[in-house]
Amino acid sequence: MENLGQRAGESLAAIRQKQPLIHNITNFVVMNNTANALLACGASPVMAHAAEEVEQMVSFAGALVLNIGTLTPVWVDSMLLAATKARELGVPIVLDPVGSGATDLRTQASLRILAVGVSLVRGNASEVLSLGDAASQTKGVDSTHSVDEAAQAGMDLARSLGTPVAITGAVDLVTDGQRVLRVANGHPLMTKVTGTGCTASALIGAFLAVDPDPVVAAASALAFLGLAAEKAADISKGPGSLQMNLLDVLYVLTPEELARGARISA
Amino acid sequence: MENLGQRAGESLAAIRQKQPLIHNITNFVVMNNTANALLACGASPVMAHAAEEVEQMVSFAGALVLNIGTLTPVWVDSMLLAATKARELGVPIVLDPVGSGATDLRTQASLRILAVGVSLVRGNASEVLSLGDAASQTKGVDSTHSVDEAAQAGMDLARSLGTPVAITGAVDLVTDGQRVLRVANGHPLMTKVTGTGCTASALIGAFLAVDPDPVVAAASALAFLGLAAEKAADISKGPGSLQMNLLDVLYVLTPEELARGARISA
Amino acid sequence: MENLGQRAGESLAAIRQKQPLIHNITNFVVMNNTANALLACGASPVMAHAAEEVEQMVSFAGALVLNIGTLTPVWVDSMLLAATKARELGVPIVLDPVGSGATDLRTQASLRILAVGVSLVRGNASEVLSLGDAASQTKGVDSTHSVDEAAQAGMDLARSLGTPVAITGAVDLVTDGQRVLRVANGHPLMTKVTGTGCTASALIGAFLAVDPDPVVAAASALAFLGLAAEKAADISKGPGSLQMNLLDVLYVLTPEELARGARISA
Repeated sequence: MENLGQRAGESLAAIRQKQPLIHNITNFVVMNNTANALLACGASPVMAHAAEEVEQMVSFAGALVLNIGTLTPVWVDSMLLAATKARELGVPIVLDPVGSGATDLRTQASLRILAVGVSLVRGNASEVLSLGDAASQTKGVDSTHSVDEAAQAGMDLARSLGTPVAITGAVDLVTDGQRVLRVANGHPLMTKVTGTGCTASALIGAFLAVDPDPVVAAASALAFLGLAAEKAADISKGPGSLQMNLLDVLYVLTPEELARGARISA
Repeated sequence: MENLGQRAGESLAAIRQKQPLIHNITNFVVMNNTANALLACGASPVMAHAAEEVEQMVSFAGALVLNIGTLTPVWVDSMLLAATKARELGVPIVLDPVGSGATDLRTQASLRILAVGVSLVRGNASEVLSLGDAASQTKGVDSTHSVDEAAQAGMDLARSLGTPVAITGAVDLVTDGQRVLRVANGHPLMTKVTGTGCTASALIGAFLAVDPDPVVAAASALAFLGLAAEKAADISKGPGSLQMNLLDVLYVLTPEELARGARISA
Repeated sequence: MENLGQRAGESLAAIRQKQPLIHNITNFVVMNNTANALLACGASPVMAHAAEEVEQMVSFAGALVLNIGTLTPVWVDSMLLAATKARELGVPIVLDPVGSGATDLRTQASLRILAVGVSLVRGNASEVLSLGDAASQTKGVDSTHSVDEAAQAGMDLARSLGTPVAITGAVDLVTDGQRVLRVANGHPLMTKVTGTGCTASALIGAFLAVDPDPVVAAASALAFLGLAAEKAADISKGPGSLQMNLLDVLYVLTPEELARGARISA
């Protein structure tokens, strides 16, 4: 097996060199942070959700990131339009099913987007599990299942959906139903900053724009974010300073540091 | 009269232990900060505004916070749906009538939500006064009445509406028309950071989720935010660093520090 | 020619004294930062986009700032309503055509707003050039033309539209087709923070509220933002801390410092 840390570092270098446009249709809470995290990473973010422009916008994009955090039906329609166009053009798609399982609207929206076909789904354990069992319920957007409980279900789900999944938590799990990668980077204080999961999904989009393997791209992005969070937490006094320092570290962290610091294992 | 600082500290401890879900239908400007302030406090925030899901979401919630800062009629409809369901379930409701009095849309929206019945209204003096006299006008979202001018009007309004009100300013006033509590915590630099009033309303929601007395819960939340702002301002160079440091302090401030530092008086 | 740095400083003092209300109809990504930058500058921001209230809200305003960053047709309709009312009342208008040229929706929206008549357009070179030649395309919201390439085109465009334009980049250019001002303040790290261009447009609104000459007001605002960014970058470790420090410096920077530090040339 190749050195996955090395590959993560090479992808980061490629993002900074190519500056791929990442088209986000995402929630209101995290738009500012998502855009800033993508900029810090080296990518070029755009937010566009109008049905009248999403197909045109996604045609310029290196990846499409769909996040249902503050959805309404009209936003879901735009996501479906954008996803359909992205599929047609071969643009990779990440789905972040924020709060799926908590309400029928969110679960059904996630399933409709999945039916179009996406490259990878990233969520916490409850969100991802809800896609396989629409009857399960999450408490808001927090996870009520452990990553361990979710591991087998994640593999089963990835196989049944034919879609790779990334389940993030204390240890992140990425699987396409065959391969499983675990990412041990990260810091507990991330859970006290809103939108770190959404940032993870957006960064997966950036890595997918330069690495066609969704399992490896997702693990690379999660290692990048997790390593940056470790370094940022070291100099933070709480969630406010972590949110700020994380952007600084995402910007200054080098491909070499990522190659050395990534803790990705099969 | 019991020690209100002590009770504020006990409520903070209860929030951190129970982590109540706080359902926010709020404005675009402050969503990120509101979510982060609730997380720092120990609560679990969710933002959801679609008519298709607000009733389901509020059924999981410890409190509902309605904020009309960037409203449109369709958002008001969702707020009314959510409020009606919350009333049916006994979920406490906070209304933040941002800019009420400035435009007819905002004043009328506030009055329609009030007619459903809420646990408490929090605003600046002009906003709160506009609810009693729809002819008064505010200059945007800033207060043009002093807290002193508003005190008697606040008591009258609370009685006529049958709804407790919190009027925030240099000294905060909370009254249900019978009791009056004043909170002397806070810092002038808060007025130079957007959304500190919205954060106050969200934190009142968190305290209402663990303390059924709206007057005491609001005073506790305002003392918590004000004390944190005092400590944050001590280490800030301007409004940018205050916004960040405030989240850090909300996270690290202990129940004991709150009990000691709260300046709540009858 | 008068000392333009001195005039910029006088305008900043006037903003802090008069605290003009700046009505923003802007994009979701930058609303928090825009509001905070206007507060730090000394102005009073309000965000309101409902068709039912924009005409009433703009009647209180010292300036109207229209930004099409995350537009939909219904938001464009509100912008047209607000702009029409602002014109009737003599309230100055700034248009920020974010991503114009990238999609037809954005280009057409910009052209429709321009047809109502605005005081000034601020964008990067690609965005501004797209208004003169709807066939040109931008890559998302990034500029693909240099300021030098855009200078002559900017003058031509300002003349043909009868509207002053501000083209921001490494050196900012402001022209009404007759006069040309260049602003050499700024820092490259600004390009790694989302919404610094949007902040520029909002600050131009604040300066227009106190200085009726759009070319001079825009140059003053750009010098103010650029000088603050220089000072903020000196104490920042990356884009996260720059975003925070910029708000601090906008707040503490004095009219005298602006008068001395502004690098505006004809």
